[in-house]
Amino acid sequence: MVRLNEIRRAEVAIDPPPATDAGLVYIGRIATPWSSRLETPRLGRLDGPLCRIEVFAPWRAALKGIEAYERIEVLFWMHLSRRDLVLQSPADDGTAHGTFALRTPARPNPIGTTIARLVRVEPDGILLVRGLDCIDGTPLLDLKPDRTLFTPLAREQAGDRQTGHDDVSDGPEETPGG
Amino acid sequence: MVRLNEIRRAEVAIDPPPATDAGLVYIGRIATPWSSRLETPRLGRLDGPLCRIEVFAPWRAALKGIEAYERIEVLFWMHLSRRDLVLQSPADDGTAHGTFALRTPARPNPIGTTIARLVRVEPDGILLVRGLDCIDGTPLLDLKPDRTLFTPLAREQAGDRQTGHDDVSDGPEETPGG
Repeated sequence: MVRLNEIRRAEVAIDPPPATDAGLVYIGRIATPWSSRLETPRLGRLDGPLCRIEVFAPWRAALKGIEAYERIEVLFWMHLSRRDLVLQSPADDGTAHGTFALRTPARPNPIGTTIARLVRVEPDGILLVRGLDCIDGTPLLDLKPDRTLFTPLAREQAGDRQTGHDDVSDGPEETPGG
Repeated sequence: MVRLNEIRRAEVAIDPPPATDAGLVYIGRIATPWSSRLETPRLGRLDGPLCRIEVFAPWRAALKGIEAYERIEVLFWMHLSRRDLVLQSPADDGTAHGTFALRTPARPNPIGTTIARLVRVEPDGILLVRGLDCIDGTPLLDLKPDRTLFTPLAREQAGDRQTGHDDVSDGPEETPGG
């Protein structure tokens, strides 16, 4: 993060609808070395400093088996971010980029996703990891095995082997040309 | 997805706190070929069928520049999923795995994350992609450039170069041994 909450030259904010379509529960808290968003890394690195994820009590049983994965996907809520910017100027140089073409924390739903190296699982819902890029105290939303390491355990589904140019449309005028 | 909403042998559900810590806004809708969770793929594949993401009007300006990325990360809300399972049996074989050691849609915050191949950006907030693994009609939460393709545009931060064994602790008794 490299801003507090100012709007910069060339940036555009909208007046978004209320964020009431679905609700989140914080399932834990993340401790990192960065107490200011002006020092937090822009992107995590797998050789970064050790960080500590605490999973709150109701969900600790859900950690069973996570130690099998060298890397995990960590989803967190970037609770300090403004949510109304559609065009942003990360370098503050007068040029603007779409929010969805950036990995900036300022987004309509400020959900951060990082791949972290799982160093150790400790008692009481504590995970030690490297690779995070969030500020100290960030609320935890989810943990998943890294997609490239995970093999589904469920039975095969019809869609699993589906490839090719099967189009999706809701009307002839919108049929893509695939 | 390979369940409707039944609880299976060896699975454990909790009575979670209300999901009111933060609120989400649906920024679009995803059209896929799968109208039942019993046929939706378990994991997307980049050579999978063409799917269509519609971004709703208020956020369309935020797509500016996204066409530069061959792959994008798609975050969506798995609106049909139960949220109370901490132990699950994907194969329904009597063995149970922790929810955080699975990429099952049934999770405390059912946020799906997939890497999709961006095929084309069309007018009116439409993106055509391959690689999704969600049911038709799934609400869209966010789009980001694939992390492996993205170079931050913001100025360098102090944390960017930080590596090694810098510990995090909130008290001497919890200092990890890194």
